Amino acid sequence: MNQRAPFVPTPRGPTDHDVRTQIVDAATEFFTRYGYQKTTVSDLAKAIGFSKAYIYKFFDSKQAIGEVIVANCLKMMTDAVDQAVAGVPSAAERFRRMFKVIVETGTKLFFEDRKLYEIAATAAGERWPACRAYEAHAAKLIAHILRDGRELGEFERKTPLDEAANAIYLVMRPYLDPLLLQYNLDEAESASAQLSSLILRSLAP
Amino acid sequence: MNQRAPFVPTPRGPTDHDVRTQIVDAATEFFTRYGYQKTTVSDLAKAIGFSKAYIYKFFDSKQAIGEVIVANCLKMMTDAVDQAVAGVPSAAERFRRMFKVIVETGTKLFFEDRKLYEIAATAAGERWPACRAYEAHAAKLIAHILRDGRELGEFERKTPLDEAANAIYLVMRPYLDPLLLQYNLDEAESASAQLSSLILRSLAP
Repeated sequence: MNQRAPFVPTPRGPTDHDVRTQIVDAATEFFTRYGYQKTTVSDLAKAIGFSKAYIYKFFDSKQAIGEVIVANCLKMMTDAVDQAVAGVPSAAERFRRMFKVIVETGTKLFFEDRKLYEIAATAAGERWPACRAYEAHAAKLIAHILRDGRELGEFERKTPLDEAANAIYLVMRPYLDPLLLQYNLDEAESASAQLSSLILRSLAP
Repeated sequence: MNQRAPFVPTPRGPTDHDVRTQIVDAATEFFTRYGYQKTTVSDLAKAIGFSKAYIYKFFDSKQAIGEVIVANCLKMMTDAVDQAVAGVPSAAERFRRMFKVIVETGTKLFFEDRKLYEIAATAAGERWPACRAYEAHAAKLIAHILRDGRELGEFERKTPLDEAANAIYLVMRPYLDPLLLQYNLDEAESASAQLSSLILRSLAP
């Protein structure tokens, strides 16, 4: 006998998922206009025409909404980096592109969406999970490129992989972390090129 | 006929130089207790028993006093670095010590003299001349060690010296700049060791 999925009636109103997305979209617009730090859930509720209690049904706190906004924002940056390195055969070139796109997306966010940048900087300063995930993704990508480059014979193999990967991560971190990037904007583009070259010199076989 | 220096009478009161030093010493104590940002020259004058007008005879502004305080503080850090590398034959070892002492002195300032650290961070954020001089000293020391290491055959010579020196400076900068160090304190000590190793790998002949 075929097992069939139990019948689930379509709810008449929007699903919880839809409401969450709706709140996040409205909150993104609200916070990117009025800032995150100085506004409250009450301000947000009033502006988007929901009751505060209704918003709290879906999110425990303002930060819980901020978390999703930051996660969405960092996801876009992560996707841009992943896309930039995808299918590039040379591991060295992948490092260069990774660093370049990290700086480009971070700088773009800073100059074109300052309020959203500020939420991301708050998140970085307070070490929100979304930021830690973003950092972890970058660290993983570095280790991945490094391993590939070693297998391809592009990079030296004497240094323990973890040590080399972590040191490269530390070089990129001031440009990766939105809290730090704002102090490194002046010369971020040329810095990323020069630091990529230094990293690659350190990896020479 | 012998030319004689004109007779200059010894002033009865303290010299201008003494008064300046006296004001700076008192201001250092005052600002490191009550903070720099939120206090005024009036507060300072009241606390040290001078008139505001008298202080303004010697310093144009609060920042002019702050400049001297920061310059003194950064001079101590610079001296510590210079001392740590003096007489060390290996250029590689000099890089390691330089990075180590930069982190040590900065971290010490942060934890043991937070208010003074905050003045230095303000100075770094606003790019006061004292900070630019501190950065320039570090950049010069890097170029100097690099040149020595090349002459000694410790380091590669293919990369243009300016390019290699600047990239090394960029690696150290997040730990050198008081404004940035505060975000890198957690793992500053191990970071300096790992980054020194990466720098030295990049310099391998």
